[in-house]
Amino acid sequence: GSARFGLGYTEGAAEETRVEQRMRVNITGIAETDAGVKFEARMRLEANEDANSAISGRGPGAAGFAVSYGGFRLDVGNVSDVIDSGDVVDYYGYGIGLTSFLEQSSNGALSLTGFGAGAQDQTTIKIRYSVGDFTVAASYSDRVAAGLVTERQQYQIGAGYNFGNYSIGAAFGSNDNAGVDDDFWAASFKGSVGAASFSVLASDSDSQADVTVGASLNYDVTSATAIRFVVSDGGAAGAETAYGLGFRHGLGGGVTLAGGVGQNSADNTVADLGVSFSF
Amino acid sequence: GSARFGLGYTEGAAEETRVEQRMRVNITGIAETDAGVKFEARMRLEANEDANSAISGRGPGAAGFAVSYGGFRLDVGNVSDVIDSGDVVDYYGYGIGLTSFLEQSSNGALSLTGFGAGAQDQTTIKIRYSVGDFTVAASYSDRVAAGLVTERQQYQIGAGYNFGNYSIGAAFGSNDNAGVDDDFWAASFKGSVGAASFSVLASDSDSQADVTVGASLNYDVTSATAIRFVVSDGGAAGAETAYGLGFRHGLGGGVTLAGGVGQNSADNTVADLGVSFSF
Amino acid sequence: GSARFGLGYTEGAAEETRVEQRMRVNITGIAETDAGVKFEARMRLEANEDANSAISGRGPGAAGFAVSYGGFRLDVGNVSDVIDSGDVVDYYGYGIGLTSFLEQSSNGALSLTGFGAGAQDQTTIKIRYSVGDFTVAASYSDRVAAGLVTERQQYQIGAGYNFGNYSIGAAFGSNDNAGVDDDFWAASFKGSVGAASFSVLASDSDSQADVTVGASLNYDVTSATAIRFVVSDGGAAGAETAYGLGFRHGLGGGVTLAGGVGQNSADNTVADLGVSFSF
Repeated sequence: GSARFGLGYTEGAAEETRVEQRMRVNITGIAETDAGVKFEARMRLEANEDANSAISGRGPGAAGFAVSYGGFRLDVGNVSDVIDSGDVVDYYGYGIGLTSFLEQSSNGALSLTGFGAGAQDQTTIKIRYSVGDFTVAASYSDRVAAGLVTERQQYQIGAGYNFGNYSIGAAFGSNDNAGVDDDFWAASFKGSVGAASFSVLASDSDSQADVTVGASLNYDVTSATAIRFVVSDGGAAGAETAYGLGFRHGLGGGVTLAGGVGQNSADNTVADLGVSFSF
Repeated sequence: GSARFGLGYTEGAAEETRVEQRMRVNITGIAETDAGVKFEARMRLEANEDANSAISGRGPGAAGFAVSYGGFRLDVGNVSDVIDSGDVVDYYGYGIGLTSFLEQSSNGALSLTGFGAGAQDQTTIKIRYSVGDFTVAASYSDRVAAGLVTERQQYQIGAGYNFGNYSIGAAFGSNDNAGVDDDFWAASFKGSVGAASFSVLASDSDSQADVTVGASLNYDVTSATAIRFVVSDGGAAGAETAYGLGFRHGLGGGVTLAGGVGQNSADNTVADLGVSFSF
Repeated sequence: GSARFGLGYTEGAAEETRVEQRMRVNITGIAETDAGVKFEARMRLEANEDANSAISGRGPGAAGFAVSYGGFRLDVGNVSDVIDSGDVVDYYGYGIGLTSFLEQSSNGALSLTGFGAGAQDQTTIKIRYSVGDFTVAASYSDRVAAGLVTERQQYQIGAGYNFGNYSIGAAFGSNDNAGVDDDFWAASFKGSVGAASFSVLASDSDSQADVTVGASLNYDVTSATAIRFVVSDGGAAGAETAYGLGFRHGLGGGVTLAGGVGQNSADNTVADLGVSFSF
């Protein structure tokens, strides 16, 4: 599991300053057949701060399952899709601050699915296959109209290639929203040069005004301390360029002090500072 | 804990084919006194697929408690009653498929109580006592009228006897539904002959048209592979004979491939196929 | 975790006799930096009997976090305030019975905050510092008006001193209920003489008619068996003196048989009997 707490600030929000609080516990069950096929099941418990100084827990959420064997992996249920999983595209990059309040994808508007502690309106199936430095992945999510939930079928397909300290990848996806098509894509290039690691992203969808471009950088000042810089541009009509600067400092034992400050796409200052730890 | 996923099919259902998904985690606390009296407490977290491709988690559910010493065991709270527990009667037999979608009791309509991941409208108390090959058990469930919950007191009492590879048992129960009596009973005979294990069940209640009779068979083709056959007949007026054929194949490490096909009491084809594993 | 079950009786209640049931599981994550600063995060799962013979589970609740180093400790989130935590004041003393249905504070009406398995309407921050036998603590809780939740800011500040087998402490607090002040205080003296341990409490608030005074006693008859006596007086206008007598008997392996009988401030007889165990 993991936990973090600290202070968060968002200019112009109804509650500008909040006590950031999160505790996550993943319950993972693993079994492996005699032939070496690995099965996993996972559910999550989580607690977060809410608005108005309230705090609450969630979960257990919907479960996600996986089967893996050699370079092959199948995910079923409450699982990440191709882009969210990072299998081939580095969508989020190096996030800023304790809460990753700013990422290289922040100005984008792709409708992705990730694993979480809540219920899911859809079932996702993802297949990934890696051979050597080459990875291909495809996912399909099925959401059926029910109550407030609208119908949507989404597929994503992507490929990535790793060469030395660098990797490149792209994915294409399409939403069928009750018969109306909405296509999207994302492509990234990432790598490291000495103590510096970088990631560059471009993405677009039929439902956003401009192509989104973003970049993020992590620089290890010492073995324990890193600084990060993120910029994300484009996206919705009238969106400002979002950018931020952050740091992370390892205190040992899985404890990290982290913080950052930046400006989001609505031209508001965002900042946070706090401690995260894993257990 | 345990998990399973695969495909399920039910002819005529609103959603004929579904991605079957379940993850179960039992949290069990155990303590034993110096005199050897064992205390247990148990609660469950669970996630399942819902209708319309949705998925959700449930729990922690109501807790169940147990005290055991020698041949004596007392269960209190969210616990199984006499028939559901299998203490004296083999009610369910050898179920078909990944999800046991068909059991020898499928055509029956007894209102039994089992342990689960949800809240319980009632508190159940069960006592079991075994001496040598003889077992007696009694349970009492108290449900008080509140909101949509109707009043009901239920007791069950049963006895079972084991002789060599065979065991026989019967239980009688009675519901007091706000003063209206509804009696029921169940009796089973089970055993094994070489690689074949069988179970035969008869049951009836005041609220069902015909006596239910059922049988199930498990045959170990090899040490890893078994085939199963189930039939269940009688029950509600107009119910068809339900029957099914299934298989289980152990892959080692607690992983089992299982599936089956059958016809339910509404004359619809039901089938499933998938993998289950424990961890 | 811990669990308990047994019988509870409250004269005059809608349901005078109930099957008492509780299971608690705390999930605690701990990490320690190289410099020895300890971080903790905690959430709870719990199941309890409800009214009308129903039973249900709750949680995961809001999380509580702690940082401690040497004599210093900071608690944030879903955490106890100064008085509830027992850091400086022994507010509850030696409770009676399986469920501590009567405590030396029972006639009091302070609005305290403790850790639990539910959501919290407020975020609490508490600081404690101990140097030698001297401890000081301060807490602040912020509750923002939202829906049925009313606005309240509460602070508490207290100090305690330990000398040999005795300790003394006091805390003062103040609620700001949307601009209306409500002050309160509590002071305790506790200690042990041979096999007897005692605690004495006095507390008052602007919203209660009389000062509350209470005392509790635990006497170890043998190494495994203790008897307890509690009295609590004052509080609301017309409140009767509450008193009770209880026992605890350790059965080994973390299992305790406990029970008690008493009279509450509404002049009704209260009693319970059962078993608790930790795991």
